[in-house]
Amino acid sequence: MIRYVLDQAKKFGWDVTVADTDPKQADRKVNGHPNGRAAWLDVMKVNDRQDLIGRADIVVSLLPAHLHIEVARDCIKLKKHLITASYVSKEMYQLGDEALDRDLIIMGEMGLDPGIDHMSAMQKINEIKEMGGKLTAFRSYTGGLIAPESVGKNPWKYKFTWNPRNVVLAGQGTAQYLEDSKFKYIPYNRLFKEYRNIEVPGFDEEFEVYANRDSLLYRETYGLKDIPNILRGTIRCKGYCDAWNALIKIGLTDSSYPILDSEHLTYHELMEAYVKPTPGLSVKDRIAELLGETPHSPVMKKLDWLGLFRKTKINLRNATPALILENLLLGKWKLGKKDKDMIVMQHEFEYELNGESHELHSTLVMKGANSSDTAMARLVGLPMGILVKQVMQGKITQPGVNIPVMKEVYDPVLEELKEYGVEFVEREIR
Amino acid sequence: MIRYVLDQAKKFGWDVTVADTDPKQADRKVNGHPNGRAAWLDVMKVNDRQDLIGRADIVVSLLPAHLHIEVARDCIKLKKHLITASYVSKEMYQLGDEALDRDLIIMGEMGLDPGIDHMSAMQKINEIKEMGGKLTAFRSYTGGLIAPESVGKNPWKYKFTWNPRNVVLAGQGTAQYLEDSKFKYIPYNRLFKEYRNIEVPGFDEEFEVYANRDSLLYRETYGLKDIPNILRGTIRCKGYCDAWNALIKIGLTDSSYPILDSEHLTYHELMEAYVKPTPGLSVKDRIAELLGETPHSPVMKKLDWLGLFRKTKINLRNATPALILENLLLGKWKLGKKDKDMIVMQHEFEYELNGESHELHSTLVMKGANSSDTAMARLVGLPMGILVKQVMQGKITQPGVNIPVMKEVYDPVLEELKEYGVEFVEREIR
Repeated sequence: MIRYVLDQAKKFGWDVTVADTDPKQADRKVNGHPNGRAAWLDVMKVNDRQDLIGRADIVVSLLPAHLHIEVARDCIKLKKHLITASYVSKEMYQLGDEALDRDLIIMGEMGLDPGIDHMSAMQKINEIKEMGGKLTAFRSYTGGLIAPESVGKNPWKYKFTWNPRNVVLAGQGTAQYLEDSKFKYIPYNRLFKEYRNIEVPGFDEEFEVYANRDSLLYRETYGLKDIPNILRGTIRCKGYCDAWNALIKIGLTDSSYPILDSEHLTYHELMEAYVKPTPGLSVKDRIAELLGETPHSPVMKKLDWLGLFRKTKINLRNATPALILENLLLGKWKLGKKDKDMIVMQHEFEYELNGESHELHSTLVMKGANSSDTAMARLVGLPMGILVKQVMQGKITQPGVNIPVMKEVYDPVLEELKEYGVEFVEREIR
Repeated sequence: MIRYVLDQAKKFGWDVTVADTDPKQADRKVNGHPNGRAAWLDVMKVNDRQDLIGRADIVVSLLPAHLHIEVARDCIKLKKHLITASYVSKEMYQLGDEALDRDLIIMGEMGLDPGIDHMSAMQKINEIKEMGGKLTAFRSYTGGLIAPESVGKNPWKYKFTWNPRNVVLAGQGTAQYLEDSKFKYIPYNRLFKEYRNIEVPGFDEEFEVYANRDSLLYRETYGLKDIPNILRGTIRCKGYCDAWNALIKIGLTDSSYPILDSEHLTYHELMEAYVKPTPGLSVKDRIAELLGETPHSPVMKKLDWLGLFRKTKINLRNATPALILENLLLGKWKLGKKDKDMIVMQHEFEYELNGESHELHSTLVMKGANSSDTAMARLVGLPMGILVKQVMQGKITQPGVNIPVMKEVYDPVLEELKEYGVEFVEREIR
């Protein structure tokens, strides 16, 4: 995002300020660019923050999500546009009228998921509607994965390319979606059992999808109020969901209660604590029994590979099981320097046109170059960068607090994204 | 509690003030007693509250637990003793030094569980220690149940005699206990599967016990720092745990996420929403399949009896599954006017004495008279009432913020409780 905006700045003569709590980081990101300037900012210092915002035309906030609201209030006060990649909170939406009054563009969910998913889906949905088609199903799946060539011997075929905490806590609560005009619910204890398999063009092996909690959230925003089928989901490689379900069943994703003696335990002792003593059976055997697995099943191999049965110290004080698991995974699922991440996004549209049923899949697959130039960083950052340009050029006319579901936003952004290799492949299923 | 204190007031010439937000309630409870006075108090009004507390010698707070702390601060300021039946919070313990300085008795956990469990366990533990015994296991179980003669056709053999919300949310998190000097953990998704069966004298049928989250909490307080086995648990009638586990598995105890369309749904539709459509199979059949039950199994009969498959409206807006379940249970598990509740408390002590192993069970079973004079009310209220008398007579010498684990408290209280039929029966197991 920063690289894109600096490149454009050269062309259009903008000045770009990169602010960070760590001035070295900001310097490194500006990297001596003639249009760039590094600033040292503690975002909690109101005066410093407002001073910096006051001197800009448009602000991109890459802060942790809960801090956007303060920046947004400053932007309203100082009459500046604002772009973020985060979910738009209720507090943020409450600034809508003021943003409208002051003709300001406050655009949230302008990254990958949420972001590119909104834009690519809306483009297709509106295309189908314009042809006179009637949508009967919309399913949208995204996964931040690793490229097959970077999997190595990792049996999970997964590494962290995004917030590890969110990966560990994913799915807690109840997932809701629509099927045949009926609401469907999947509670956490069944979420990773009741996954579906999807085919993605270019891959021999199927992928797995578990349902997101929020499938119903965008029904009205997408103009799909009466659609009988809607589902949003997260993509993982084959075998992931069964093994993650095992971690849930053992109890390792609970974040509500600390393990009192965690600092003195080894992982082996922790596993022992979850099963009953049975003479002659190893901890691993008893965990397998608890899970209904054989000791060398694919699920057990994944647990074993994580080091859950090793006699190494956990070394965390008073930690919840979820924190212990996250800490373990951080070591095992770390992206290697040369590892390539891979984003897979697939929309499935079912619609009726001229009395015939159609099914269309639209798929984006993108790999990163290495662990610092990731597909994740590109796909989260580029849409914001491109929108900066659109706003600077006065091409966005709709003010207010919004997400990118309008044609004047998604058309130019998706078009320019193609130059960066971001292209959806479509195929007719029937 | 109020009746006991009023009775004693007559004997000792005390004045008793009963305060309530509803003056009629207070009047009804004083019931014209010559030593009693009803007061109308909004406890959030600081001046009114302090005025009332200022005129007392000792305060008993039966407020919701989170409100005790304000009363406690007033008591410190105004130099008054305070008794509650609730768990002592961290904030409360922080008043300990001030209470000591001012020679005040602030006693929490002075009800049944916590309360009578502390006192009866400590009495026995200290007895065993004084004999020279060494404790190797302590297990303590309590259940607020209904008397067998009041079960009727209710297949759960359970009705609410305590906070319904806590019953619905019971066990969320991870239960921790000690077995053979090793910590053991049971996560929520296995808690109601991994129950144990216990025998209680006087009952042909066994009871079920699931582990509490807090088994380790009182280890040091009880003087059991190095005990290899410690477990606290909740007692239910046979068959309860399997059926409750079914509710968990379906997803009905989730309190983290609202069902968006709950006001329009029937219970039948709600259940339909939790299972996949299969032509020819009823919702009940499919729920049974999901649970691995036959359609007429004891578990399915309990779900059926609750009305989960009936086409009646839920009638709650934007409610979480847990709230929907609680609301349904409130109708089905309501104590009838003549119903008798029943408290069962059982301690299990294993100890070594003179080179021999012993196991001793100490059991309290008490039934209520009817739905207003419950065993629950008596067993929560009487200990506080008796302590009021002890304090008024200057017999309690230990000031500070405490729970009833000292001999000068538990001996006289347990002794007087016998007059009210509260008696533990002991039996040697080996």
